[in-house]
Amino acid sequence: MKLAGTSIIGDRRAPSVGPLAHSADPRTGATLQPGYAAICSADLDAACQLAAAAAPIFARSDARCRAALLRDIGNRLRSVESDFVAMTTRETGLPEARIRGELARTIGQLAAFADEIETESWRNVRIDHAQPDRVPPKPDLRSQLEAIGPVAVFCASNFPLAFSVAGGDTASALAAGCPVIVKAHALHPITAEIAGMVIAQAVAAAGLPAGVFSLIYGPGQSVGQALVRHPAIRAVGFTGSESGGRALMDAAVTRPEPIPVFAEMGSLNPVFVFPGALARDASGIASALHQSIVNGVGQFCTCPGLLIVLDGPQRAEFVKHLTALLAHTASAPMLSLSGAQKYRSSVHQVSSQRGVAMLVAGESDAAMTEPSLLQADPELLAGNAAIRHEMFGPASIVSVAKNIDDMLQIANQLSGQLTATVWAEESDWPQLPALLDVLKRKAGRVLFNAVPTGVEVCPAQTHGGPYPASSDARFSAVGTTAIFRWLRPVSYQGWPASLLPPTLRDGNPAAVWRMVDGKRFAPGAG
Amino acid sequence: MKLAGTSIIGDRRAPSVGPLAHSADPRTGATLQPGYAAICSADLDAACQLAAAAAPIFARSDARCRAALLRDIGNRLRSVESDFVAMTTRETGLPEARIRGELARTIGQLAAFADEIETESWRNVRIDHAQPDRVPPKPDLRSQLEAIGPVAVFCASNFPLAFSVAGGDTASALAAGCPVIVKAHALHPITAEIAGMVIAQAVAAAGLPAGVFSLIYGPGQSVGQALVRHPAIRAVGFTGSESGGRALMDAAVTRPEPIPVFAEMGSLNPVFVFPGALARDASGIASALHQSIVNGVGQFCTCPGLLIVLDGPQRAEFVKHLTALLAHTASAPMLSLSGAQKYRSSVHQVSSQRGVAMLVAGESDAAMTEPSLLQADPELLAGNAAIRHEMFGPASIVSVAKNIDDMLQIANQLSGQLTATVWAEESDWPQLPALLDVLKRKAGRVLFNAVPTGVEVCPAQTHGGPYPASSDARFSAVGTTAIFRWLRPVSYQGWPASLLPPTLRDGNPAAVWRMVDGKRFAPGAG
Repeated sequence: MKLAGTSIIGDRRAPSVGPLAHSADPRTGATLQPGYAAICSADLDAACQLAAAAAPIFARSDARCRAALLRDIGNRLRSVESDFVAMTTRETGLPEARIRGELARTIGQLAAFADEIETESWRNVRIDHAQPDRVPPKPDLRSQLEAIGPVAVFCASNFPLAFSVAGGDTASALAAGCPVIVKAHALHPITAEIAGMVIAQAVAAAGLPAGVFSLIYGPGQSVGQALVRHPAIRAVGFTGSESGGRALMDAAVTRPEPIPVFAEMGSLNPVFVFPGALARDASGIASALHQSIVNGVGQFCTCPGLLIVLDGPQRAEFVKHLTALLAHTASAPMLSLSGAQKYRSSVHQVSSQRGVAMLVAGESDAAMTEPSLLQADPELLAGNAAIRHEMFGPASIVSVAKNIDDMLQIANQLSGQLTATVWAEESDWPQLPALLDVLKRKAGRVLFNAVPTGVEVCPAQTHGGPYPASSDARFSAVGTTAIFRWLRPVSYQGWPASLLPPTLRDGNPAAVWRMVDGKRFAPGAG
Repeated sequence: MKLAGTSIIGDRRAPSVGPLAHSADPRTGATLQPGYAAICSADLDAACQLAAAAAPIFARSDARCRAALLRDIGNRLRSVESDFVAMTTRETGLPEARIRGELARTIGQLAAFADEIETESWRNVRIDHAQPDRVPPKPDLRSQLEAIGPVAVFCASNFPLAFSVAGGDTASALAAGCPVIVKAHALHPITAEIAGMVIAQAVAAAGLPAGVFSLIYGPGQSVGQALVRHPAIRAVGFTGSESGGRALMDAAVTRPEPIPVFAEMGSLNPVFVFPGALARDASGIASALHQSIVNGVGQFCTCPGLLIVLDGPQRAEFVKHLTALLAHTASAPMLSLSGAQKYRSSVHQVSSQRGVAMLVAGESDAAMTEPSLLQADPELLAGNAAIRHEMFGPASIVSVAKNIDDMLQIANQLSGQLTATVWAEESDWPQLPALLDVLKRKAGRVLFNAVPTGVEVCPAQTHGGPYPASSDARFSAVGTTAIFRWLRPVSYQGWPASLLPPTLRDGNPAAVWRMVDGKRFAPGAG
């Protein structure tokens, strides 16, 4: 695949003007080619105008056409798998198996949204028939969800495929009928260009307007901010750090017309471990958590960063086992040298707090990173927010709670979380109700006897939670409900039947699930 | 009913300390008793803490208990109808029939949410069963919508009952299981206290924690801002001006933990009138629009403030008829002397723009207001945002379009709208597609051959739209979907069956509509 090192503006490429930004192999620091030119403001405006022009056409396109587009993107991504294996492994330091696995997940997500939209039940059709004899007369009202307009998507550093150019945000926005402008991540511009070319080709092959998809390059603080502030953009999707997400939220709300931002940000993903569970399998739980902490060198937003263990007979064995596993984990490269540096400094910041002990102090050089395990008393954890600080990487902090009140005290101090986990057997259940109540308020997903990493893409998934886990806990970034971030209801009052979209017509010609006069009906009825 | 003139903090009253604020009869300017003390910051904090303490208990209360609470509030409101008739007419200048009608609407809204929540299908239950043999194993995941936590509700000036203390925001938040703290509006504190006492009594009678409801008094810029910034508050509901809503949005997003604001703000509610419709009934359409403009002295957010008439044989008759009707409308008091002053100055501001003519220049004195009708050419309307300015009150601006392109030019310049209306007969339909496409992008509700005022409370209603019509077009302030503003999804992964809420258990003991393994099922199946 021939790479141009420039932004994709619908069906044309931006010129390569100005200084070039390069990605680097995080294992060696070696600069990779090509370099990428930042988009100029005229071309950024052109991409946004193209998207605005495409928006109404794409919004009313047949959902089966969009489903076919998503599947075609998946097929085309599959056809360039060897390019991803060659280039993405170099840009990210991630092993080939991870890249192949993440590509499969990316294609799977596209297929999941294709399946979801093929029948238009996701439009949440509601029909209230007129009652002309009522006083006052009741009008005929029908509503359905429709595309919100052009969406700006920001690539995630830690998912070069599944949450980047062709990832979940793009898939869900295209599924909804929203044109997408993706801002590439500085860590993997080559991967972005490969995926971007694939999508642009699929859009052209589908005969859709070129403005349905653009891919732009440039610094977040200039190009990213300008994208979010462009009047054509109607919503924003972001996966990354709390500071990055917050900057976009602030930019979006200070626009003349504020727009919604869905930012999926940081999380500690606390894990509460009970004696009954440890009595059953202390070493198994330690192994599972170890894998979850070090998988992907800890660079997952659901990495379990806080372990609260209720004191009991197997507690020491559990901590000892986990300590040993982490201490003997081979070093591995993080996604970037700067990320590794940030990891080391955040571990240092937490471990230098009064009362925090270092159980595993990984020896990390510039390129290779080892896991860390810290320990702190519950009172310190509850009392000092600096200890409850996300260390993005393979690190966790363990705390031994004397009783359930210790656990509750920590739980109550937690900020919003993507996940919270309980390891407990039936003998532990009597202690759980108050804790579960707190965890359900704090997190988007509450797990039993499982690790939080490995976010299943399915209808019942919630990947999001109270701030700072995400910007708006009412939406999910993963799973088929992610489409609802990019849809808004439109009501049709008193429309002539023949001008209504098929989904809203009497007789249900579009064969969708609907609510009619307050009652839900299957496609064959109502 | 004995009035105390103080804030209601759960089951106690705040002391009456400091200067008192009084409402006034807008027809006479006469001060009304009692005066109301602003809540002090300690009591505001107490109300918020009470709400936070009540939140988990209220969130897991039986939905039938909350339905009973809503109906009891309705019954208790009915029992003090004579108090509202006596006091609200004085505070607002609204006629008795309007107060009785608005009370009926308020009680109807409470009943609609009671009906909606009684079966818990609104929780959008999704269940994905485990597939332990899949590689990797698929976990058991179940999700449902749960209460977001304490909600701050701001009373609307123009709906002393239906969008104030016991109005739609409060009803939908209580239905969702969220405690509510209402900030009374300075224009009708007495009405607020009557409704607030009723709700507090109903909460006590239901045996619910007192923190489920509080009512506070004080200036928006201090007390309102402090309420939105309080860490216990998890979401905000507001109905009012664009500047007021924007101030709350800005406060909410600059919190350490930003929270969602649903603000329902201003709208021009453009109406596009076609020759075929006028040929059928020019005077009937003029009469309908006249009623819609002057109803409630124009103080509805769906008042039609912009009429674009496509030139044709009956155009002159239509404008003449509407002009005559508006010119002969009796004067009436607006909700406040300051509101009447704002109305006059906004009409003056628009009419002083170059090229704007005054067709009806209502003679308004301090207390009594007459309607206004302005006229401007389409090019001026499209080119000058100052002419497309909401004049809150009984005013509209009419413009004669030479052709559909004139109409489209204006439509494309519109900012977000609550409603957009088309008056058209079958002979006009060929001209409509491009216009309808624009209007669906600009508005939350698009009407045919009807007036935008009179917002039906039903499942298919959308009262909201792109900014500045509302802060987040993905939600509605009216209709049963309004509950979704206060709910967020929570996923349960791998939970023991007996710890799951009944809605999420296999066998569907709660008898709700659910999506199971991607398929929708009725309560009796799945």
